[in-house]
Amino acid sequence: MAAFRLGPEPRAMTTTFDMMPVAIVEGCYPDKFGVPRQPGLASSATARLVLQPPFDTADALRGLEDFSHVWLTFVFHRNPTAWHALVRPPRLGGNRKVGVFASRATHRPNRIGLSLVEIAGIERTPHPTIIIRGHDLVDGTPVLDIKPYLPWSDSVDNARAGFAPAPPPQYAVIYSEAARKTLATRPDGDALVTLINDVIAQDPRPAYHRGNTERLYGVRLRDIDVKFRETVLDGQCTLKIVAIDTP
Amino acid sequence: MAAFRLGPEPRAMTTTFDMMPVAIVEGCYPDKFGVPRQPGLASSATARLVLQPPFDTADALRGLEDFSHVWLTFVFHRNPTAWHALVRPPRLGGNRKVGVFASRATHRPNRIGLSLVEIAGIERTPHPTIIIRGHDLVDGTPVLDIKPYLPWSDSVDNARAGFAPAPPPQYAVIYSEAARKTLATRPDGDALVTLINDVIAQDPRPAYHRGNTERLYGVRLRDIDVKFRETVLDGQCTLKIVAIDTP
Repeated sequence: MAAFRLGPEPRAMTTTFDMMPVAIVEGCYPDKFGVPRQPGLASSATARLVLQPPFDTADALRGLEDFSHVWLTFVFHRNPTAWHALVRPPRLGGNRKVGVFASRATHRPNRIGLSLVEIAGIERTPHPTIIIRGHDLVDGTPVLDIKPYLPWSDSVDNARAGFAPAPPPQYAVIYSEAARKTLATRPDGDALVTLINDVIAQDPRPAYHRGNTERLYGVRLRDIDVKFRETVLDGQCTLKIVAIDTP
Repeated sequence: MAAFRLGPEPRAMTTTFDMMPVAIVEGCYPDKFGVPRQPGLASSATARLVLQPPFDTADALRGLEDFSHVWLTFVFHRNPTAWHALVRPPRLGGNRKVGVFASRATHRPNRIGLSLVEIAGIERTPHPTIIIRGHDLVDGTPVLDIKPYLPWSDSVDNARAGFAPAPPPQYAVIYSEAARKTLATRPDGDALVTLINDVIAQDPRPAYHRGNTERLYGVRLRDIDVKFRETVLDGQCTLKIVAIDTP
């Protein structure tokens, strides 16, 4: 298909753009490992999005309470700046390669991420802050822009989505007696169980680790360390919370 | 609503991030004036998205043909870098102010734009290029990232969208005999009529110019200059294409 071209030759641009964080994420994922691979998968996860100087005025948030969701443009700041033209999405079992621009891989040029999150609240003092829910952002993530979600402009009926046509499968999550006991001692125990279920059900392990029932994994959530292991229950791959390490 | 906070105090970040264009837009809108205020409003508008060195490898686009839409993160490079905490959206008639983060205004911190566009084709030689349709990007726009649209992650049922709950109204567009004649001389005349209808029907004028039937406006599309004026037809505000100036 032809598209109009103003000049005969493609143009080059050597300008670069210096971006400042407008907000910083304070959230429940201290590490990259375990962070949901898309927003909305862990719907219980909340975070604070604290505006940064010189953008930290409550005026900049005026009217945002009339919207239910926002887009966040952020930087995968904990990722190396190296990028590759081809990546191996976990959805393809880590075997097949696709182009970096045909994926949402975190290793990418400019390390730009995009997340659609729910607005759970807005605080104006002492620091202008948006409380967000269902996020997929590592604690400390710099956010470069915040825009309201417009349903009539931002959603497409019958879109084709290649290798990722549906949400990834969820796994059953079970708890050891020891893990249950530790959680029972926490005032935020119920919220933690919901968060652990959301996060572990997605199986944060690399695709090629599936089927390995020997190895023990650790995911940090808030201030706890969740130890889990694959186990087989009724012939089904299940993820078992073996222990909870607390500070 | 409370969200978990790891530390007692909000953190500050003074790091900035230097971004390189991964692609440049070659499109039908040489100027800012007339560009649709959201993608999808001018569904006929096509553009070429030409990958830039060092990202200009066809590998980076592998598998993208299996997706129908992409998100583009770009820079409003023709806008001043100045920003204001409060903006006056055209949707509110230019009277009411809302916070910059509750709007998609182009005058914003980091000048970051976000567009959902349809993939109309992919070219691999001589320059890796995505042909996009239904875009809202000025010719020459630097694109910082390209990501596939994921329907199960990127759309929300029953989202609330404050002051912009539905697409903006469309106006009737009529043509003078002179404009019709000029368009008939162009090999791309039919495509131009579709594009002109799409663009002018949205009324690109500032909200406070509505009702002014005196003033003549010019919108550049591709290599033509479209002159239009508000007129009243059957008691309805109508936009009349008065003349088409060609090179």
